[in-house]
Amino acid sequence: MCAYKPQFAHYAAYEAEDALERTIEYVHRTYPGIPVILDGKRGDVGNTAERYAIEAFERYGADAVTVNPYLGGDSLEPFLRHADKGVVILCRTSNPGARDLQDLEVGARRLYHVVAELAARRWNGNGNCALVVGATYPRELAEVRRIVGEMPLLLPGVGAQGADVAQAVENGQTASGTGLMVSSSRGILYASPEAAGTGFAAAARAAAEALRGEINASRRRRRAP
Amino acid sequence: MCAYKPQFAHYAAYEAEDALERTIEYVHRTYPGIPVILDGKRGDVGNTAERYAIEAFERYGADAVTVNPYLGGDSLEPFLRHADKGVVILCRTSNPGARDLQDLEVGARRLYHVVAELAARRWNGNGNCALVVGATYPRELAEVRRIVGEMPLLLPGVGAQGADVAQAVENGQTASGTGLMVSSSRGILYASPEAAGTGFAAAARAAAEALRGEINASRRRRRAP
Repeated sequence: MCAYKPQFAHYAAYEAEDALERTIEYVHRTYPGIPVILDGKRGDVGNTAERYAIEAFERYGADAVTVNPYLGGDSLEPFLRHADKGVVILCRTSNPGARDLQDLEVGARRLYHVVAELAARRWNGNGNCALVVGATYPRELAEVRRIVGEMPLLLPGVGAQGADVAQAVENGQTASGTGLMVSSSRGILYASPEAAGTGFAAAARAAAEALRGEINASRRRRRAP
Repeated sequence: MCAYKPQFAHYAAYEAEDALERTIEYVHRTYPGIPVILDGKRGDVGNTAERYAIEAFERYGADAVTVNPYLGGDSLEPFLRHADKGVVILCRTSNPGARDLQDLEVGARRLYHVVAELAARRWNGNGNCALVVGATYPRELAEVRRIVGEMPLLLPGVGAQGADVAQAVENGQTASGTGLMVSSSRGILYASPEAAGTGFAAAARAAAEALRGEINASRRRRRAP
């Protein structure tokens, strides 16, 4: 590989972007049909939002991207208009600080309820919205599910963050036992003390399969065997 | 320059990051003391926020960065702990969609008032917070100034977005006629139809000087000549 930009010291950052592009390309080539969600948590306006959408969907070739709703509908529109791509809006996140703003009382509701309502009623014209709701907050998950009907929910918080998978699936699933994208990152990436090699691959696979089993065991209707 | 990554077609994106790094380095070398604010609008948690802070302050060498408060205090902490760097929190943005969430009524206040209060009372322990308030909303600017005392405010919306500079400065300044960072981007960058050269430089300079004059004319106390 060509040693580019030798005048700057932060090679790691460049390699990360390169690695991201290559990883997404690899996933698409190797596992056609598996969607890639870019967790960029973008939130900007006008022309900048436009360029972030192009970055996510064209530069990186992602199938969906996470976005932050604080700037409102016009900041999401440049993503939403890509009708064949998913737009995953932060609603009730899995971190403790989520309470600071997202749980504030807006009339009889909380702010994250309002975000869920806006997503369901105003932003989902192309049917390409989803919401981020932390698996670490099962009560909030049930409330969001009641508001958004069949809309898919992306659930961080499983694995290293210690969410109860069974409870999260019970509270978050749709009437037909679907509608969830359960995300575990560190729990799978760091399942093995090795950083690469066959030990790494086997441990990551085992952790992913165990989680899949746990998820499916709590679904209202299981897939046919 | 080495033609790196020939296997990917999106050269423009790589060049943009390279150009950003070089521009900041150029500003610091040529105009020591002029702070550079990276308008990244970051908003993420834990280890990721940590890495975004390192990207902004070490990779790019920025003096300050804009951040999104929707994820709460723990998402800002990795930035705030860099006591020698500025953290500019989105409060009431200049776009029309700002109303969707930021103007929601939280008890007797609005959501952006709550963000201003959190910044003033909880997040400013190192005295390195500032807030983004759109110059396009002068009434909201006056309200935020009342809440945050002497805290600096970053004002987008001047120039291409058409804010009234005099009214924004009148409503946003501190008691001593300071505390504002008035940002014009397109109004200066596109002051000339030329994209470079002496015509570009002269037009950009003239637009910047005219805006400076307009700002200073509305300040409570002007600088000594």
